[in-house]
Amino acid sequence: MSLLDDPATCVDTIDIALGERSYPILIGQGAPLWQQAVQHFPAGTSATIVTNTTVAPLYAEQLRAQLAPHYPRVDLVVLPDGEAHKNWQTLNLIFDAMLGSGADRKAVLYALGGGVIGDMTGFAAACYMRGVPFVQVPTTLLAQVDSSVGGKTAINHPLGKNMIGAFYQPRLVVCDLATLKTLPQPELSAGLAEVIKYGPIYDMDFFAWLEQNIAALKAQDGAALRHAVRRSCEIKAAVVSADETESGLREILNFGHTFGHAIEAGMGYGAWLHGHAVAAGMVLATQLSQKLGYLPDDRFLQRLLALLEKAQLPVQAPVLDAARNAERYLALMRVDKKTQGGAIRFVLLNPPGKAHTEKIDDAIVADLLNASIAA
Amino acid sequence: MSLLDDPATCVDTIDIALGERSYPILIGQGAPLWQQAVQHFPAGTSATIVTNTTVAPLYAEQLRAQLAPHYPRVDLVVLPDGEAHKNWQTLNLIFDAMLGSGADRKAVLYALGGGVIGDMTGFAAACYMRGVPFVQVPTTLLAQVDSSVGGKTAINHPLGKNMIGAFYQPRLVVCDLATLKTLPQPELSAGLAEVIKYGPIYDMDFFAWLEQNIAALKAQDGAALRHAVRRSCEIKAAVVSADETESGLREILNFGHTFGHAIEAGMGYGAWLHGHAVAAGMVLATQLSQKLGYLPDDRFLQRLLALLEKAQLPVQAPVLDAARNAERYLALMRVDKKTQGGAIRFVLLNPPGKAHTEKIDDAIVADLLNASIAA
Repeated sequence: MSLLDDPATCVDTIDIALGERSYPILIGQGAPLWQQAVQHFPAGTSATIVTNTTVAPLYAEQLRAQLAPHYPRVDLVVLPDGEAHKNWQTLNLIFDAMLGSGADRKAVLYALGGGVIGDMTGFAAACYMRGVPFVQVPTTLLAQVDSSVGGKTAINHPLGKNMIGAFYQPRLVVCDLATLKTLPQPELSAGLAEVIKYGPIYDMDFFAWLEQNIAALKAQDGAALRHAVRRSCEIKAAVVSADETESGLREILNFGHTFGHAIEAGMGYGAWLHGHAVAAGMVLATQLSQKLGYLPDDRFLQRLLALLEKAQLPVQAPVLDAARNAERYLALMRVDKKTQGGAIRFVLLNPPGKAHTEKIDDAIVADLLNASIAA
Repeated sequence: MSLLDDPATCVDTIDIALGERSYPILIGQGAPLWQQAVQHFPAGTSATIVTNTTVAPLYAEQLRAQLAPHYPRVDLVVLPDGEAHKNWQTLNLIFDAMLGSGADRKAVLYALGGGVIGDMTGFAAACYMRGVPFVQVPTTLLAQVDSSVGGKTAINHPLGKNMIGAFYQPRLVVCDLATLKTLPQPELSAGLAEVIKYGPIYDMDFFAWLEQNIAALKAQDGAALRHAVRRSCEIKAAVVSADETESGLREILNFGHTFGHAIEAGMGYGAWLHGHAVAAGMVLATQLSQKLGYLPDDRFLQRLLALLEKAQLPVQAPVLDAARNAERYLALMRVDKKTQGGAIRFVLLNPPGKAHTEKIDDAIVADLLNASIAA
C-alpha cells in the first residue's frame, strides 16, 4: 500500500502478535473502516462506552450507532476531561456505572478518547470482575500512535504518574483518522512528539520522511497522517510483540519519557501536555547520549531541534526548582517505574535509529541538567 | 506421605501447574518449613510485609527475621483488620507506603494474614507499577485451604463483593500450620466450611474422612489439620491448573458461594464471616440440587447438616428482608460475577462428589428460598 492510496476508502490492518492475546489495529476512516471494525467486535452481553466531556458531544452517538446492532444494551459513561482526573475517584465512576446497570463478566468496554481515557478504561476493564474485554477507539494522534497500542493501562497516584495499573491488552484498536480533524493544534503537536520518537529509537528513514512531511502533517493532510499513524503503529507493534511486559526492548519506547515524566510531575499533572514534556525530554536524552560519547557530534541534536520546532513542540525543559533544579529532577525521576535498585535508567541513542537503556550516575545527569536548563 | 509423618519436621510441596506462572505451595511448620521456603523467595530490591493489626503482633517480626537476610530492605505495612476494610482506601495505604519508601518494580510483597490480607496484597501486587511479585503467607485455615491459592485477588465495591480485582498468581504460598494455633474458634470453623466444600464438589472419600476426623480438627490436632490443608490444596491445585481464569471448571469451587455472597452483602460485609455464609449457602445449594432432581434423596443433605453442625457452622440462612426475602436474595445474587446475561448460575451437585454449573429460573430459586428460610 502506498501513500497514493485513497485514505477515504482503504483500511490498513496491523497485527499485534501476542499469542492468545493477539489483536488487530485498524487504520482508516468513516464507513469502510467501521464495516471492517464490526467484524472484530468482541461478543458480549452489553457494551459500555467510556469517554469524556470533550469527546462525547463529537463522537459518542456515532460510536453508539455502530455498537447498537451488536449488543443488547449500550451504556455511556462520560468522565471529566484531563490528566488531573486520571485517578481512582474517576476510575470508580466507571465501576459505579457498570455495577449500577448490572454489567456482567461478558460486558465489553469501549475507550473513546485520548490517552487518559484509554489508560483508565483499559485499567477498568482489567479490574472489573477481574477482567472483561475492551476495545480502544483513540481519537487523538497521541493515542492512535502510542497509548492505545500495547496494553499499558494505569491511573496516576499523587506520588507518581501511571503508578497503579496493569498490562492488559485490548481486543481491537480502531484508529479513525477522521477524528483527528477536530483535534486542537497543541494536541496534534503533542501527538507528533510520539511520532517523532519512533525515528531515533528504531527507524531513521522514518525520521527523514517526517523532516520532509512535517508541514503536511501540521496541515492535517490525510495521506501524511495516515502514513505517520501506520508506520508508528508498525514500529510499536514490532517492539511490543517482542516484549509485552517491558522487561527489556520495550523500554526504548520510553525515549525522552524519564525526563518527560519528571517535567509533568514537577509542573503538576496537566500543566504540560504529555507530548510536550516528551519533546523536551527527548532533547535532554539526546544531549545525555552525546555527553556519554554515543553520538559523534551534534548533527542529530540539531536535526531533532529543528523538527520539534517545526512541529511547534517545546525543546527547552522548564526549571522545576530555582535553587536546586537538578536535585528536583533527579528526585522525581527516581520514583519512575524504570528505576531499579536506586539507580536511574535512561533510554539512550547509539547511534540515532537504535536505542538502549542504561543506568547513569546522578552526577553526570545533574551536570547535564545544570548545563542544559540554565542555558 | 502418611498421617503418621511428624508434622513438626516434614514439609509437603504441592505444585500449581500454570506454565510460566507455576508456583509451589509449601505446607509444614517452624524451621523445617522456612528452610525450604527461603529457597523459593523471589529476588528483589526490597520486601514489603502487608499484614493487619491482629496478625502483626503475633507473626510480623518472625517473618521479618526470615526475610531480612534476603532483601536489602524489609518494610512493614499494617492495615486495619476485617472485611469492612477490604476497599480502595485501605488498598491505597499499601501504595502510599511503597511509593513513599521508593519501592521499585523489583519490590516483592508478602501477604501475612487471612483472606482479606491475601486478596488485597495480591491486588496491590498486580497493580503496583503494573505488577510486582508477591508471596502468600496465609495464617488462617480459610486462607491456607482456599483464598491464598489460585491467584484470585480483589477488593470489594459498595455494590458487590470482590468486584474489582485481578487474576494474579503468587510466586509462592507458605502455609505454616503453627499459625493456626492462635486462630479463634469461629475463624477455625469458617475455614472448615471451605475444607468441607471440597468433598461434595470433588472427593466424597475426603468428605467421609472429614466426618471421621471433625473432632480432631476442631481440637486443632496437628496431623488432622495437616491432612485437611494438604488435601484441600491438592484439589484446588487440580481445579485451578485446569482453568486459571474461571471460564469453566473452576466455577465449581464456588459451591455455596452464590447464596453465601448474598448473605454477606445482605447482612453487611463483616457481619457474617465468609466461611459461615458459605456453610449456610452450601445447604441451600444442596437443597436446590435436590429440588432439581440431581440427588435421589436427602441422605447427603443430612450428612452435610450433621458435619456442618459438628464444625459449629450455621446451617440456616438468615432473613435479609422480612417482606420480600426471596426477591432480596435474587437481587443480590444477580450482581454476582458468575451471573451472565441476566440469568443466575448456581453450582449444583450431581451426584455428591461431582459438581456442575447451571442457570436456574428465578421462580425455582424463590420457591426454595421461601421454603428453606421461612422454615
